[in-house]
Amino acid sequence: MSKKIDLLGACELLRKWDDILILAHQKPDGDTLGSAFALLWALEALGKRARVECPDPIPGNYQAVFGEYGPVSFPPRFVVSVDIANPDLLGRLRESWEGKIDLCIDHHQLNTMGAAYSLITPEVPATAEIIYRVITALGVAFNERMAGAIFTGISTDTGCFRYASVTAQTHRIAAEMIEAGALHGEINRIMFDTRSRALIELDKIILNSLEYHFGGLCALVVITREATQSLGIADHELDGISSLPRRIQGVEVGLALREIEGGYRVSVRTREEVDSCALCAGFGGGGHKSAGGCTIMGDEQTVRKLLLPAVEQALRRAGLDWQ
Amino acid sequence: MSKKIDLLGACELLRKWDDILILAHQKPDGDTLGSAFALLWALEALGKRARVECPDPIPGNYQAVFGEYGPVSFPPRFVVSVDIANPDLLGRLRESWEGKIDLCIDHHQLNTMGAAYSLITPEVPATAEIIYRVITALGVAFNERMAGAIFTGISTDTGCFRYASVTAQTHRIAAEMIEAGALHGEINRIMFDTRSRALIELDKIILNSLEYHFGGLCALVVITREATQSLGIADHELDGISSLPRRIQGVEVGLALREIEGGYRVSVRTREEVDSCALCAGFGGGGHKSAGGCTIMGDEQTVRKLLLPAVEQALRRAGLDWQ
Repeated sequence: MSKKIDLLGACELLRKWDDILILAHQKPDGDTLGSAFALLWALEALGKRARVECPDPIPGNYQAVFGEYGPVSFPPRFVVSVDIANPDLLGRLRESWEGKIDLCIDHHQLNTMGAAYSLITPEVPATAEIIYRVITALGVAFNERMAGAIFTGISTDTGCFRYASVTAQTHRIAAEMIEAGALHGEINRIMFDTRSRALIELDKIILNSLEYHFGGLCALVVITREATQSLGIADHELDGISSLPRRIQGVEVGLALREIEGGYRVSVRTREEVDSCALCAGFGGGGHKSAGGCTIMGDEQTVRKLLLPAVEQALRRAGLDWQ
Repeated sequence: MSKKIDLLGACELLRKWDDILILAHQKPDGDTLGSAFALLWALEALGKRARVECPDPIPGNYQAVFGEYGPVSFPPRFVVSVDIANPDLLGRLRESWEGKIDLCIDHHQLNTMGAAYSLITPEVPATAEIIYRVITALGVAFNERMAGAIFTGISTDTGCFRYASVTAQTHRIAAEMIEAGALHGEINRIMFDTRSRALIELDKIILNSLEYHFGGLCALVVITREATQSLGIADHELDGISSLPRRIQGVEVGLALREIEGGYRVSVRTREEVDSCALCAGFGGGGHKSAGGCTIMGDEQTVRKLLLPAVEQALRRAGLDWQ
C-alpha cells in the first residue's frame, strides 16, 4: 500500500536522498521525458547524482529538444517514477524495478504503481506541471533546458494547450517557462508541425478508407497491418489517428479499426451524446465516456457486422436520428 | 497621414465618443471577430451605443462561439477598425468607410489604413491582445463572453499558442481570460478539432496529388478548380492547406499549386535555408523569407516546367544537395 504524500513530503524525500534513478514509461511521450529530464537537471543543480532510464529508445524528435542522453550508470539508492500509471508501462524495466520504486509522481487518477510513496495530482493536465511545482518547492531556479523540458511535457500532453483539461495555472507555468528561456516556438514546431513521410503516406491510406454510416453520424477508418508494416510505423505513432473520424463535422461516433493478428483493435471516440465506454463494454472493452476501445476477433467483414449494429443502437439510444 | 497614439490615447478617444462603429475585415477570422466583439461588449459595459460591421457573413463556427449577431443600425459618430491592415480588406464596406476611420487598432507591421489615429502594436501575435490591453486600461471587468472573444482571437491567430510569436504575456492573458470564464476547451474544440466533410474530402484529394522532388527536399500538391468547385469550398478555407507540404519531415520547399482561371496560384513555404520571397519574385510575386506566393499562367505542365527548375536552383543556391 503506497503512502500518499504532498508536494513538501516529496521534496523532503528528494532532498534527503542521493544517487537517484528516474524512470520514464515505455513508448515514451513528451510528458514522461520532459518530467524525467527536468527533474534530473534540477537534482543535478542541487549537487546530486541522478540518471534517467526509459524502457524504449528516446525518439529523435525528443532528442532534438532534450539533447542526446548518454548512458550513465550507478546503483541507485532512491528510485522515482514519473508519469507511469501502472507497472506494465515499465516495459523491459519491469523485472528490475517493480516493487522497488520509492516515489511515484503522476497525474493519472488510477495509479497502481505501488511505490512506497506517491504524489498523485489528477487535476493537472500533465505530470510536468507537478514536476514544475516540485522544482519550484525545491528552490531550484529554472534554466533554459529545464524550462524547455517542462514546456515540452505540458504542451505535448495538452495538444498544445488545446484540451479542456488546461487551466489558468497551466498557461501561467508556460509563461514562466518561456521567460526562463524555453524555446517554445522551436519545441512546438518539432512536436506539432513535423510529420514523417511514412505518417503522411498513412494519412492518405486512412483518408482513402474513410466511410460514413447512419447519415454521417458515424465515420469509420481502417488501418491495415500491411499499411503500417510496409511503412514501418510503430504502434505508438498511431495514437493520434484514432481521433480523426470524430473531428469531422456532424460525426457523433468515430471508429478506427486497426488490424491485429486475427482481428481488429477498435478505437471509439464520441461527442457528448453517445457513451463510448458502454459501447466498448459490449465487446469486452472499456474506457471513458468519450474515448473507449475494444478488440474484436475476425476478418474486417465480421467485425463490421458486429460493430455497426451496436453503433446504430447506441445512436438510437442517445436519441439521435437520421434518414 | 495617420497620427500614432498609445494605449492611453486610444482609451481617451473611446471614452470621449459615443455611437461607435467597429469594423472587422473581409473573410473574417477569429482575431478580427474576437477583437471586434470584445470591444463592442466592453463599450456597451461603459454605457455606450456600439455596433460591429463585417463585409462578409460571420461563419458558423464563430457564431457558435460569439452567439448570433443581429443587425443593429445607427449612424456612427466614431469609427474603429480592428485587425485591418489595408483598405482592400474592407471589401464591400470600402466605399462606405475608406477615409472615414477615426481609430485603427492593429498588429500588422505594414498598416496602410490611413485612419485619423492609429494604435499599431506589431510585436503582439494577435490584435485581440491589444484589445485586451485597451479593455483593461478602460477599467472594464471581463465577463464570460468578452473573455471568450479575446481568447478566441488569441488562440486562432497563434495556431492555439503554437507559433514562435507567442510570448509569456500571451499565455498570461490566456490564463486571465480562463479565470474570467472563457470556455477555452469548447472554443478550441470548435476552432481546431472540427473539420467539414468537404475539407476532409479535399485533404484526401490533396494527399493523393502529393509528390516529392529533388530527393524529398521539395514536396508539391495540386488543388484543382474541379475539386474545390465540386466540394463547394471557398477560397479562404484553403489558407491552411498551403503549409501542408512543408510540414513533412525533410522538406525544405513546400509548394501548393491552386488552379485559377488560365493558370495557377503558387504558394511557397520554406524552412530556414531557402528564401521563399526571392523564389516567388522570379515569377512576379513576393512574400516573406519563409512564405511567399506568385501566379503562373498556363496549364499544369507548363507551370511545373517553369517552377521546378527555379526550385532546384534555389535549393542549390542554399547549399542543399541530393542524389
